[in-house]
Amino acid sequence: MIETAKNSFKKQGFMKVLGAKMVSIEKGFVKIECELKKELTQQHGFFHAGVLTSIVDVACGYAALSAMPKNSDVLTVEFKTNFIRAAQTDKIIAIGKVIKSGKTLTFCEGRVTDMKEEIIFATMQATMICLKLNK
Amino acid sequence: MIETAKNSFKKQGFMKVLGAKMVSIEKGFVKIECELKKELTQQHGFFHAGVLTSIVDVACGYAALSAMPKNSDVLTVEFKTNFIRAAQTDKIIAIGKVIKSGKTLTFCEGRVTDMKEEIIFATMQATMICLKLNK
Amino acid sequence: MIETAKNSFKKQGFMKVLGAKMVSIEKGFVKIECELKKELTQQHGFFHAGVLTSIVDVACGYAALSAMPKNSDVLTVEFKTNFIRAAQTDKIIAIGKVIKSGKTLTFCEGRVTDMKEEIIFATMQATMICLKLNK
Amino acid sequence: MIETAKNSFKKQGFMKVLGAKMVSIEKGFVKIECELKKELTQQHGFFHAGVLTSIVDVACGYAALSAMPKNSDVLTVEFKTNFIRAAQTDKIIAIGKVIKSGKTLTFCEGRVTDMKEEIIFATMQATMICLKLNK
Repeated sequence: MIETAKNSFKKQGFMKVLGAKMVSIEKGFVKIECELKKELTQQHGFFHAGVLTSIVDVACGYAALSAMPKNSDVLTVEFKTNFIRAAQTDKIIAIGKVIKSGKTLTFCEGRVTDMKEEIIFATMQATMICLKLNK
Repeated sequence: MIETAKNSFKKQGFMKVLGAKMVSIEKGFVKIECELKKELTQQHGFFHAGVLTSIVDVACGYAALSAMPKNSDVLTVEFKTNFIRAAQTDKIIAIGKVIKSGKTLTFCEGRVTDMKEEIIFATMQATMICLKLNK
Repeated sequence: MIETAKNSFKKQGFMKVLGAKMVSIEKGFVKIECELKKELTQQHGFFHAGVLTSIVDVACGYAALSAMPKNSDVLTVEFKTNFIRAAQTDKIIAIGKVIKSGKTLTFCEGRVTDMKEEIIFATMQATMICLKLNK
Repeated sequence: MIETAKNSFKKQGFMKVLGAKMVSIEKGFVKIECELKKELTQQHGFFHAGVLTSIVDVACGYAALSAMPKNSDVLTVEFKTNFIRAAQTDKIIAIGKVIKSGKTLTFCEGRVTDMKEEIIFATMQATMICLKLNK
């Protein structure tokens, strides 16, 4: 399902706009990087909360998909994001990992950090649902 | 503070990229509209969960700011979004409203719906914090 | 399913301890009342956040169950609670209602208020899952 | 502040009812244990979601308080709990730890597991607020 996740990521027009790159994927784990540009800012010129949330949601979603059976697709049921500190930096990493992969639901946790993965900007808890594809 | 909120919204590079428009603002209430374009899609061509979340977060944030005292700014502490159904539509409305405006924290609720405000795509609970500006 | 929900509520040992009473149930809507006693307090003598959460979770859960098909049971997938103000009162009402009832998942919203349903102490967003029983 | 947290815990009537014991506390970290009894069950006889949430909320709250300056008290602003699997066991451990301790807000993460801390029953993200006491 890792190839499926990679291909699905490429189909997301929104990830292209953000300039987000999936730099790492293994079963139940995804890492995405994103560089700051003017288009991604809030009123103070930092990364927008919506950008942080969008990329860590996608990291969690594809982490979940990578652990699902063949012919599945993934949808976000819900998530919750805590904004620990303002993302005053020029590049961020979002990590999504699976806490439990069930038949229907997958629970994930995510984080957005600086490039050294030391300073936490945001944390996420997310619930994903597995959609069976008719193939 | 309504003018402050309007001006701050204009400074958000990310809202420009989304093509989001603040169509209504009064004390404690904000409405934002957003049209679908290829840049805002997930893998199935619908509005990306990140887009829905971003605009309803902004609606909640400026609803909060509009009810704060002069010389305040607003930051999102945290939010939670439930994705009720896929946003298979070509234009959405996000509404943010204040549930309680405190000295430090403001609690908001938000929704993303179709243009008739009948079909709910997403609901949000958000906590905003008031920053005192030195002026 | 309203009788099913009522009977299930009676089986919850924890609701007995809290002294919680289901005072109203219709399809997709449940109301529960709870009186303050020393056993339900936090360190300042007010209703404990855990008590507020427990009864509004149960209100949401049975609201969800009341709208499910026969031979279903309900489990809480996740919830989020905002504590709007300290519950400095001697009796509270928790309301749970269904926002969308799907085949697998049901989205609910809940509130805890004073007895006049004017002062909001807490708000909840919850996701419930339908379990099919073999009968 | 560790003694303050211990004393405050003892004042919580609700923790007595649950039979919850604070078995470990250091700066920014709290562990609480709780044994199953009939009074803590949901309709299937397992630990009630409200019990899990209550003890992990308290673990997070006192983890936050333990890292606050003298003459502070703590209140829960909001939390989100994911119920990973049914807590079919006779004793649980709840852990709360501080992710970031700010002047006003403290972000915490919590977990409820079995006694070996291997099987996760629930995860929490919580926001706590620091109250200054006049002393």
